[in-house]
Amino acid sequence: MGSISDWETMKQTALVLDQFQVNYDKRVISAHRMPDEMFAFSKKAASNGTKVIIAGAGGAAHLPGMIAANTILPVIGVPVQSHALNGLDSLLSIVQMPAGVPVATTAIGTAGAKNAALLAVQILAVNDKKLQSELSDFREKQHDKSVESGEKLV
Amino acid sequence: MGSISDWETMKQTALVLDQFQVNYDKRVISAHRMPDEMFAFSKKAASNGTKVIIAGAGGAAHLPGMIAANTILPVIGVPVQSHALNGLDSLLSIVQMPAGVPVATTAIGTAGAKNAALLAVQILAVNDKKLQSELSDFREKQHDKSVESGEKLV
Amino acid sequence: MGSISDWETMKQTALVLDQFQVNYDKRVISAHRMPDEMFAFSKKAASNGTKVIIAGAGGAAHLPGMIAANTILPVIGVPVQSHALNGLDSLLSIVQMPAGVPVATTAIGTAGAKNAALLAVQILAVNDKKLQSELSDFREKQHDKSVESGEKLV
Amino acid sequence: MGSISDWETMKQTALVLDQFQVNYDKRVISAHRMPDEMFAFSKKAASNGTKVIIAGAGGAAHLPGMIAANTILPVIGVPVQSHALNGLDSLLSIVQMPAGVPVATTAIGTAGAKNAALLAVQILAVNDKKLQSELSDFREKQHDKSVESGEKLV
Amino acid sequence: MGSISDWETMKQTALVLDQFQVNYDKRVISAHRMPDEMFAFSKKAASNGTKVIIAGAGGAAHLPGMIAANTILPVIGVPVQSHALNGLDSLLSIVQMPAGVPVATTAIGTAGAKNAALLAVQILAVNDKKLQSELSDFREKQHDKSVESGEKLV
Amino acid sequence: MGSISDWETMKQTALVLDQFQVNYDKRVISAHRMPDEMFAFSKKAASNGTKVIIAGAGGAAHLPGMIAANTILPVIGVPVQSHALNGLDSLLSIVQMPAGVPVATTAIGTAGAKNAALLAVQILAVNDKKLQSELSDFREKQHDKSVESGEKLV
Amino acid sequence: MGSISDWETMKQTALVLDQFQVNYDKRVISAHRMPDEMFAFSKKAASNGTKVIIAGAGGAAHLPGMIAANTILPVIGVPVQSHALNGLDSLLSIVQMPAGVPVATTAIGTAGAKNAALLAVQILAVNDKKLQSELSDFREKQHDKSVESGEKLV
Amino acid sequence: MGSISDWETMKQTALVLDQFQVNYDKRVISAHRMPDEMFAFSKKAASNGTKVIIAGAGGAAHLPGMIAANTILPVIGVPVQSHALNGLDSLLSIVQMPAGVPVATTAIGTAGAKNAALLAVQILAVNDKKLQSELSDFREKQHDKSVESGEKLV
Repeated sequence: MGSISDWETMKQTALVLDQFQVNYDKRVISAHRMPDEMFAFSKKAASNGTKVIIAGAGGAAHLPGMIAANTILPVIGVPVQSHALNGLDSLLSIVQMPAGVPVATTAIGTAGAKNAALLAVQILAVNDKKLQSELSDFREKQHDKSVESGEKLV
Repeated sequence: MGSISDWETMKQTALVLDQFQVNYDKRVISAHRMPDEMFAFSKKAASNGTKVIIAGAGGAAHLPGMIAANTILPVIGVPVQSHALNGLDSLLSIVQMPAGVPVATTAIGTAGAKNAALLAVQILAVNDKKLQSELSDFREKQHDKSVESGEKLV
Repeated sequence: MGSISDWETMKQTALVLDQFQVNYDKRVISAHRMPDEMFAFSKKAASNGTKVIIAGAGGAAHLPGMIAANTILPVIGVPVQSHALNGLDSLLSIVQMPAGVPVATTAIGTAGAKNAALLAVQILAVNDKKLQSELSDFREKQHDKSVESGEKLV
Repeated sequence: MGSISDWETMKQTALVLDQFQVNYDKRVISAHRMPDEMFAFSKKAASNGTKVIIAGAGGAAHLPGMIAANTILPVIGVPVQSHALNGLDSLLSIVQMPAGVPVATTAIGTAGAKNAALLAVQILAVNDKKLQSELSDFREKQHDKSVESGEKLV
Repeated sequence: MGSISDWETMKQTALVLDQFQVNYDKRVISAHRMPDEMFAFSKKAASNGTKVIIAGAGGAAHLPGMIAANTILPVIGVPVQSHALNGLDSLLSIVQMPAGVPVATTAIGTAGAKNAALLAVQILAVNDKKLQSELSDFREKQHDKSVESGEKLV
Repeated sequence: MGSISDWETMKQTALVLDQFQVNYDKRVISAHRMPDEMFAFSKKAASNGTKVIIAGAGGAAHLPGMIAANTILPVIGVPVQSHALNGLDSLLSIVQMPAGVPVATTAIGTAGAKNAALLAVQILAVNDKKLQSELSDFREKQHDKSVESGEKLV
Repeated sequence: MGSISDWETMKQTALVLDQFQVNYDKRVISAHRMPDEMFAFSKKAASNGTKVIIAGAGGAAHLPGMIAANTILPVIGVPVQSHALNGLDSLLSIVQMPAGVPVATTAIGTAGAKNAALLAVQILAVNDKKLQSELSDFREKQHDKSVESGEKLV
Repeated sequence: MGSISDWETMKQTALVLDQFQVNYDKRVISAHRMPDEMFAFSKKAASNGTKVIIAGAGGAAHLPGMIAANTILPVIGVPVQSHALNGLDSLLSIVQMPAGVPVATTAIGTAGAKNAALLAVQILAVNDKKLQSELSDFREKQHDKSVESGEKLV
């Protein structure tokens, strides 16, 4: 994530990854305050065995796109809700990438942070039957919880 | 894609996939006019050997999210540029998914269509060294073309 | 409604329907977490004797449009106020339906939830003189309350 | 409609109504330039046997809401695409009605104009089996056309 | 104003008018809930000796424009800050009037409410030397207060 | 107006004023390129016998507000449609004035330019019976033209 | 700054300038309530030895642009977060200046206020080696703080 | 600039710099396609004698902010008008920088490109009397051209 203040949002990513027992590193790497670390990290990620990168940032959110520029790994971008413009700036800064360097963008805020983790698991599951079946279980439980929530209404 | 009129945008996806010699099916499946086909398609996709789904749609663009609701495969959503609101409606309809069902969203229009293909290749490349090296080549050529474009200026 | 969290908004719909003694079912049917139930519900609604469907949802609000895709009953969509974008995403996701599958959209939030109920009653009243006269009474009382509210100012 | 310049959009409504052989009157009634006619029209509509009113307008689009204020008939509002703001002003002026007086709003522009007609037919069909079956046929043809459009791609 | 809930904003208008000892009536006249009163009021205003009308409303704010449609008096519209869209809907509904029926629009919320009163006074002052000199005094005091506020900073 | 390029819009103002035989001066006074002239003009306007000022400008449209800061005459602001943001920037720059210095804002573009002239005439008419009756005539003709435009439809 | 209420934002500018021991004057100069002072200030600034001007304002934020119109010194504009539109109006009013009179615009709110100070220091540093090295130190500390903030996460 | 397609906009910058006989290099350095060149360029710029950097980019416009992250030179960002969102995405991606790394942002499109050059000259002029006097001349001519443009109207 681009700043420690993004952790409140991005810990939702961590919680979902924990649920699927997926190994991950969590780091603050500011595109603007730590550009060298960002470059070093993104250039080495693939050879270090990283499979997917999730980057959350707010405002002029350059982190996901700049990491994507330095790796061929799939990069997932989470627009953190910003103060003045409620994350519209974060969203547009992340999603409107030029042709050639994609960022897989999720929703603004905590929903996007959770979905970034799920998307990462879905990507890893493309070649992992165990993860596939865990995702199916997750969806089933999610479905059941929705059903149950409605039953309280009657 | 949700409508044959999206083909003008989505053929950019096809062209990039062709470049990487990735097999794909291209279909019009309208979430609103062909809901049964959409359900059947998305429920069977994983067992049919599909690895990644790319869905382009405009306006109240429900196709990517509804496919994602019916599969655990990674779903990439391309916001097609709409007439009145220039694709802002498409973008928000695709990217603002609730926690639990992610859609990997790319940029509005043709840049997003190209990047959807690249993102799909990047996902497939996670376990495919040949694709990884082809992606590296692609990036290198892209880099060189950018460099050359600037040399004309002097 | 798409989520139990929408109930805070959608109970306003229920309260107005109660006022007119219109029978209704209230359910949580998430387009994304319960797609099968959504399909089953919307396909059977007409034959079950349902006359009008009201669907409230927020964010990438696909529920109203997807129900509308599976029924020829009038579908009324209520854009629930979302966290980051204040319901602009909900509104555009609901109202910007492509030609062929309409959703009757009301205002963002509780005003829209109340009006969805009134619109449903107005639709039912097209062939129901008793409801027509109750609507006229409702409007009259509403008018009087407005008049009285202004009298306090003097 | 509020102005003869809206006819380019609203004739789409007429074409769909023609298709369903639904009787209708088409009129220019400007809320701002013909307020008396608007009041007279909307107050008498119900007793004249009108069942549903469709009102298209652009910019500060007051026509649908003001008609709705003067009748208990269902009023469908079509936001005509405006010059400067592409219909965002029309949409917000029509959809953001206060609690108590609903307007069933459709999409900006021609898609909304067509859907307004379909919505009107769906409302009339609530108590009309013949219209119900015609709507089902319409949907089927629409579905088939979508399917066929995709077959050209292969 | 369109609703008693607008009073919180519109009392700022009243306070400024009091300051200039300008006579005024304050009323709740809802365009949507009291259309007849609105018409009667706006049609008779000129002959009743009213010189300027100030109308505040929020959301689909039709009141200022509909009054303007029924009078040749100058009408000043105040966009009341709305819940979901912060008054952007109110502003566009008021300001985007079609050619032929102007509404003099001020800022969203209390600043606009105060300025509506000042604008009314400025209009009345066009032929009133006493008001002109009172406006000059007002501006001077306002200027001095600004100057003084800055002096505290040193 | 702020620039000669605004003339395309602002000549609509001139045409309406001509219609009412109201005397006026038309000038290019750029707030940013001719600040001294702007100050001199706005400070002297009242004593020169000017009754109302109409100022059109686009983008960061400071002209109307800065003139208003230097005069107690009513100032009408016309947001000229800008290139990139379609006049939304012009509108917000003109209408969002702080409490104390009002600008009577009209619609974006030519509709606003025409209405600025009509508003000026309405302001002048407050104490001018002849202008009042001309305004009534204008409205009547406008009404008749609207009625006639609709008759062509049948 | 344009109003004493902007001080909450603009004191962040002062704090950063203090950190770099850069001399500065802080003043409230309202473009709309103190136009003469604004003109006098901006016309004399250069000859008084001022090197850079920072102007913060909100809403219809004319202060930065109007100062820029009266000086050839670099003017930095800070969009103060406004009440209704969260500073989008402030941003567009400041940044969308016409060709010929630039304003160097920073982010909405306190981030922009801090950056305005840093930008001023960077401008002064163009010919000041000591400031250059202090800026390098500032960046280094900022970098280290970012790094440390991330270390707490492990 | 970030892409050769930005040249259409950015050549306006070059033309103004030519006018002031300021030396400059013009380059295409894509943040996303040439990240290494961007880093190398921005890290060495100061020691190479560069005084000010102007960076134009569109969409998810990361170039200005990423250059700013790697240098303490003043960086001016020009939001190039993008296809779908008219440069609103470019503007927000450039201007909404976090505290610590400023980018001096100008208007969207060619006006911003010209002003970026003028701002650069103004920055260089802080310690250059000749440039100061040339800027004064430039302003004077600009003023005169504005005045003359208005004289054609009479």
